[in-house]
Amino acid sequence: MSYVNPGGEYARDSRYITTRVTADGRDGFPVEPGRYRLVASRACPWAGRAVIVRRLLGLEGVLSMGMAGPTHDERSWTFDLDPGGRDPVLGIERLQEAFLARDPGYDRGITVPAIVDVPTGKVVTNDFRQITIDLSLEWKAYHRDGAPELYPPGLRPEIDAVNEVVYKDVNNGVYRAGFAGSQEAYTEAYERLFARLDLLSERLEGSRYLVGDTITEADVRLFTTLVRFDAVYHGHFKCNRRKLSEMPVLWAYARDLFQTPGFGDTVDFDQIKQHYYLVHRDINPNRIVPAGPDLSGWLEPHGRAALGGRPFGDGTPPGPVAAGEEVPAVPGRSWAR
Amino acid sequence: MSYVNPGGEYARDSRYITTRVTADGRDGFPVEPGRYRLVASRACPWAGRAVIVRRLLGLEGVLSMGMAGPTHDERSWTFDLDPGGRDPVLGIERLQEAFLARDPGYDRGITVPAIVDVPTGKVVTNDFRQITIDLSLEWKAYHRDGAPELYPPGLRPEIDAVNEVVYKDVNNGVYRAGFAGSQEAYTEAYERLFARLDLLSERLEGSRYLVGDTITEADVRLFTTLVRFDAVYHGHFKCNRRKLSEMPVLWAYARDLFQTPGFGDTVDFDQIKQHYYLVHRDINPNRIVPAGPDLSGWLEPHGRAALGGRPFGDGTPPGPVAAGEEVPAVPGRSWAR
Repeated sequence: MSYVNPGGEYARDSRYITTRVTADGRDGFPVEPGRYRLVASRACPWAGRAVIVRRLLGLEGVLSMGMAGPTHDERSWTFDLDPGGRDPVLGIERLQEAFLARDPGYDRGITVPAIVDVPTGKVVTNDFRQITIDLSLEWKAYHRDGAPELYPPGLRPEIDAVNEVVYKDVNNGVYRAGFAGSQEAYTEAYERLFARLDLLSERLEGSRYLVGDTITEADVRLFTTLVRFDAVYHGHFKCNRRKLSEMPVLWAYARDLFQTPGFGDTVDFDQIKQHYYLVHRDINPNRIVPAGPDLSGWLEPHGRAALGGRPFGDGTPPGPVAAGEEVPAVPGRSWAR
Repeated sequence: MSYVNPGGEYARDSRYITTRVTADGRDGFPVEPGRYRLVASRACPWAGRAVIVRRLLGLEGVLSMGMAGPTHDERSWTFDLDPGGRDPVLGIERLQEAFLARDPGYDRGITVPAIVDVPTGKVVTNDFRQITIDLSLEWKAYHRDGAPELYPPGLRPEIDAVNEVVYKDVNNGVYRAGFAGSQEAYTEAYERLFARLDLLSERLEGSRYLVGDTITEADVRLFTTLVRFDAVYHGHFKCNRRKLSEMPVLWAYARDLFQTPGFGDTVDFDQIKQHYYLVHRDINPNRIVPAGPDLSGWLEPHGRAALGGRPFGDGTPPGPVAAGEEVPAVPGRSWAR
């Protein structure tokens, strides 16, 4: 599979299946406990958003989760981490099967996150942009007690505006740098990425979170890129003006979130590294996975509480990670031991 | 050209032409002002040693220098930076010509540094291990006033011992990591590299230089690897436990040397990056050259003077860079403006 378009820019195929699971079931898929399965992968930043939001909102009991392994082949994500290589609920070896069940002629990306209708085995949606918003708004009746408001009505215009520039310049910007097909396309992506990170750093210098004084959807979306920055984007994607660990404000912000229940306890650095370095043969043909970086810094004190803020607003942090959903420890991470 | 040996370890071809230029001319090549030309490249760490030592000892007037460009093809180093693409003294386009003049059947590496006998156009030696030692000991009659003793008799056993482990684990260790043909070979090189850097850091914590209290050959040899660390070895060769800039003792040590006349004023970061990222197609097939890292830190205060030490011993620093041998500025580097 080729990720780089020689001579040109990287253009993400963003034609997703946009059917929605909603409270009123207007698309034929009403919110219903136990009916759907969120298929994710620890490796993927887009899936990582949904994994975090599901946990913050306490939806584990009503929306089960399947985990594809970190690497994939021409036919994309597989359930190679599961016993027998099959998802235990859907009974499939490849996520592709659920896409083809939905549309036998499906010829676009086999991507995570995907929400699958368990009774029919069909993908309902893989539109990562909408999935987390719908978990916040459409699944509200099933949120845990104390679930935070990640997309509060009064802040939506500001959250949307932040999300848009963060998507273009940062979330997708790192891919535009890494998969650039020319020096010019790379340089343009690199400059936009670091200019945006500088602006975000200024914004976060005196403010604990991106929008308002609590964690919102905007923080979730920035976090999933920042947590991968030094492990993959800095070297593999050549986003190397500085490491995250050399950008003091963003590094403290990312550590603060990492140490907040629901964020770092969803992160598997080994799977992240394996995915990028093993799958992208066209930019890492020898498929060596770096042993670094040293991860111990993620648990260091962040000092951000002095800025105030109420991480969960009027709500509370989520409880322990659900059984079977634990991630490996990083040095010093007690919750995963 | 293939640098990686799939499935195996990287093994440097270390069969060099070991003829020497000596004071007594025992190999037929006596030290003689104006007779020889040192061919180097700003990109190459092995050549960088000779460039630094020549300048520290003030040999510019008696041993001229030719500079190959940063990139090369199957036939190795070319004089593409010179007007007309020819070395102005040797009149050749490719360094290969001087190797073939020496031995028409020459089939080993076309490497820099190389010392060429100008009257015959033949390479005398490309044995980088011996070249700098001979510049110190055999060319002594032509050293400038105040030239430092880089290889003083009483310290030679210790310098040799340090050089040996630094060569194996660090100078060549970064290549063993970067050109590893298997995950196992990479991991072994990575572990040895960072274990050695830890030991060197301990050694340098209370001692300004590696051996004794002045700059020696040992410092020159470690410097040429450290100065390339964040620009190429960290990302391109996956030596990414930490950046040099995240190893406080080694980073201060490297900055101290960088800011010492004769070291940083020989370094061209752009040529270094172009060389590694453009030449090694098998580990960087898209040949994008990273825009980073930010280099401004190299001029920050190093604080190492508090450890004492006399950089040039009873000697003095070298004067300004010779005309025509200047390197481009890094941000804040006044001497090259």
